[in-house]
Amino acid sequence: MSEAAARRRGRGGGGAARRAERSAVSFETAKYIERNIPNFEILNEEALDIIEANAETVLEEIGVNFINNPGALARWKEAGADVRGERVHIPRGLARELIKTAPSTFTQHARNPARNVVVGGRNLVLAPVYGPPFVRDVDGGRRYATMEDFRKFVKLGYMSKWLHHSGGTVCEPTDVAVNKRHLDMLHAHMTLSDKPFMGSVTEKSRAQDSVDMCGLLFGEDFVRNNTVMTSLININSPLTFDDVMMGALEVYAENNQASIISPFIVGGAMAPVSVAGTLTQVLAECLAGIAYSQLVRPGAPIIMGAMVTSIDMNSGAPTFGTPEASHITYGVGQFARRYGLPFRSAGAFCGSKLPDAQAAYETANSLNMGLLSGVNFMLHACGWLEGGLVASFEKFVMDADQLGVLHGLARGVEMDENALGMDAIREVGPGGHYLGCAHTQRNFKNAFWKSDLLDYKPFETWADEGARDTQELARLRVETMLAQYQQPALDPAISEALDQFVTERKAREADSFI
Amino acid sequence: MSEAAARRRGRGGGGAARRAERSAVSFETAKYIERNIPNFEILNEEALDIIEANAETVLEEIGVNFINNPGALARWKEAGADVRGERVHIPRGLARELIKTAPSTFTQHARNPARNVVVGGRNLVLAPVYGPPFVRDVDGGRRYATMEDFRKFVKLGYMSKWLHHSGGTVCEPTDVAVNKRHLDMLHAHMTLSDKPFMGSVTEKSRAQDSVDMCGLLFGEDFVRNNTVMTSLININSPLTFDDVMMGALEVYAENNQASIISPFIVGGAMAPVSVAGTLTQVLAECLAGIAYSQLVRPGAPIIMGAMVTSIDMNSGAPTFGTPEASHITYGVGQFARRYGLPFRSAGAFCGSKLPDAQAAYETANSLNMGLLSGVNFMLHACGWLEGGLVASFEKFVMDADQLGVLHGLARGVEMDENALGMDAIREVGPGGHYLGCAHTQRNFKNAFWKSDLLDYKPFETWADEGARDTQELARLRVETMLAQYQQPALDPAISEALDQFVTERKAREADSFI
Repeated sequence: MSEAAARRRGRGGGGAARRAERSAVSFETAKYIERNIPNFEILNEEALDIIEANAETVLEEIGVNFINNPGALARWKEAGADVRGERVHIPRGLARELIKTAPSTFTQHARNPARNVVVGGRNLVLAPVYGPPFVRDVDGGRRYATMEDFRKFVKLGYMSKWLHHSGGTVCEPTDVAVNKRHLDMLHAHMTLSDKPFMGSVTEKSRAQDSVDMCGLLFGEDFVRNNTVMTSLININSPLTFDDVMMGALEVYAENNQASIISPFIVGGAMAPVSVAGTLTQVLAECLAGIAYSQLVRPGAPIIMGAMVTSIDMNSGAPTFGTPEASHITYGVGQFARRYGLPFRSAGAFCGSKLPDAQAAYETANSLNMGLLSGVNFMLHACGWLEGGLVASFEKFVMDADQLGVLHGLARGVEMDENALGMDAIREVGPGGHYLGCAHTQRNFKNAFWKSDLLDYKPFETWADEGARDTQELARLRVETMLAQYQQPALDPAISEALDQFVTERKAREADSFI
Repeated sequence: MSEAAARRRGRGGGGAARRAERSAVSFETAKYIERNIPNFEILNEEALDIIEANAETVLEEIGVNFINNPGALARWKEAGADVRGERVHIPRGLARELIKTAPSTFTQHARNPARNVVVGGRNLVLAPVYGPPFVRDVDGGRRYATMEDFRKFVKLGYMSKWLHHSGGTVCEPTDVAVNKRHLDMLHAHMTLSDKPFMGSVTEKSRAQDSVDMCGLLFGEDFVRNNTVMTSLININSPLTFDDVMMGALEVYAENNQASIISPFIVGGAMAPVSVAGTLTQVLAECLAGIAYSQLVRPGAPIIMGAMVTSIDMNSGAPTFGTPEASHITYGVGQFARRYGLPFRSAGAFCGSKLPDAQAAYETANSLNMGLLSGVNFMLHACGWLEGGLVASFEKFVMDADQLGVLHGLARGVEMDENALGMDAIREVGPGGHYLGCAHTQRNFKNAFWKSDLLDYKPFETWADEGARDTQELARLRVETMLAQYQQPALDPAISEALDQFVTERKAREADSFI
């Protein structure tokens, strides 16, 4: 029995308590996925060699820009790069040499050690949507996100069985000053959930605040020696590294905290309108960014990332769940494995304005491909809507439920005597029925994955109950989960220290909304 | 320009005609998919060997039943099987020996030779939903299917770019007598579409009618020498072959027409509640069924099939898009390749009552897995709803649009100089923009797959236009397609002969509705 269930059980007895328990949402969290299936390899070795050679040519001949960052230019010069102005030309082979110090796996600690995640290898860690300025739900429609919305998403994430990570900016709390919202966001992740989380990257000082708050939560000494945050460092494609993102990266690397180093590419706009061309640029960007992280601190934990979509050339809109985005993701995954680096990509991507069939087709295309491409850290794994402009409450729980499918797929096929089931085939024989046989009785509980959300009822029952669609089922699930949410226990002294830090830090400067 | 477009163009001139053409639905049909990507192999050789050995044990020790079919029992006895009553025990190795005469690929001819399909190898042929007694659309809700519904589906299939095949019983026309509806269905496929189609399997005489009608459409001589139908022969799992299905199989095999030999399994009910156990039974059933087809006529074209779902053990409802169904499909695909046989599986499977997010998640899970598992013939590739009880007009065009994603994925990654795009990266450089560069201008039209249905518009435009969800967009598309449908030309003499055959054949016996 989970802790929460035990608490509920403790409150009452008899039939009412048992009924409450049956309708209750579990607080169980599945372990991160350990794949027992192969990765899908779309490129052969020759293709990988060609793209890698071209990426090296890009780095050497064209180079990359490090903007407003004399420290970075100095580090590159010292490492042997040819620096002209802000343009860094990286000699062939140098970046690949530098990235060798990056660890192939790392543990990100949660304040509840049962929820630590190991990033890399054959593992897959799932984290929610990141960054939307808007939220949407059935009742309130589409609106700017607030800190209250943010807290609700953290609670839903905490209660989602197949979600291993609390994420970062699950939505932008636009009602809190830009220079202070990171404090409230971190406070929410730290106090409303016990899953691992991400730090702020919107300014160097905010990254430092993130490290300092982790010092209060985990103890400074622990943070010095362990990775307790994974943060998202976007590259400005094409081939540009700005001082804000690099400033945050530097803080995290210096403090041994993990960064996802990731171009965000709409193919055809920020990269060539071809799969192989985009792969070449993504690879050059990742090599340069990861190499730089290792110049800051050799051994700093990083994740090689690629957030890639295609574009509708008629409207200029990014498109999701498309074949070309899949091809690129499969390809980047192969390079991450070639270099032995953890890999971030894919997510519950869709362009739809509503959590409807379009959203689900596009999302399922992307989630499936994410699993098979060998992704180790999947940001945006639930809740993403409208090209990432919107965090949807209903889609959050719909996607979070589908993440169970990925867990089931990754288990692979069991081949022990029980799984082979010859006793069952012998018992039942031609024309018989398996529902009652001994093998079925022994195995039915865990044999097949089952949704906690979707409708499996007979048509008549479903019609009698109001002919609800998935969005409506999700609306009810959100309501139930938030009603049943219970905050995980936290040492009151730590809680107080975090409150105090946020209050004092907020008082230090005036609100800024730009 | 397509024939249809030429006709439209011919009708008028100037701006109005051009506008009409822009809003028109294309009559183009893509060539069947020729995969340029690897298959996903979930089982290693050792696992395949174990399951194969167990399947041979099932055939030898347990055996299979051939019901009400003395001719089949005689054939098996003659071939060396141990026949006891209606139970056929097939000695280890015999079935695998017998299936060697089945061709690894075959061409199914369409009356329009441009629409012939080659089934097997690395190809994937997509065909619509098969069998639902109900239809659903937004306006009419869920209701029993009629012949008028059937004709509409054939028209939609004819106009669906990514659909290569007209299918068979796209819905059950319940307003026509059971013993006569096959005539109307075949007539519709033959006259309203020029894509390949399936024959009737509900009685031996109806299979013969199908062959006879093909004689009128293609010429008897052509039918004797070529495969012009692919029909669906279901095995009654577990391990039972009934006389109705075997009767139809015998007619088709004797006439050199293709059959899909396919168990229809709800795992846990008709097969063991485990992946490896179900794979074992499926393999035994396919080996026995395919071996029997080759006893009827060595060289008869067949497809090794597996229609597999899991079950919700609480409600007994079949569940779709689940990990276990995927595992089984991947596994059966590997066996089909081991024996060099064409493979049928997967489809737009879902349990949802509506074409909503549940339907799309489940469908996309299944379609993606179908592509990667190496399916050669995918029945139910569009239109399936509510566990196959319902053919949905809206979901038909939604799924048919998503089949474009499979075409794109299967193309693989181009690696020529243009695709590598180094000129683009050089032209644009760090911080630049690819939208206007020469490489983009040259390639943008065919670079990325684009939906013909889904919404890519900015939020404000979408809201102004009524905030339509996918179902509503699909409703409009169905309406437009049916309004723009034009019958493909057919020799009037053939058309008359088909009409006459149907009329005379119907007059030969009284209506039966059982």
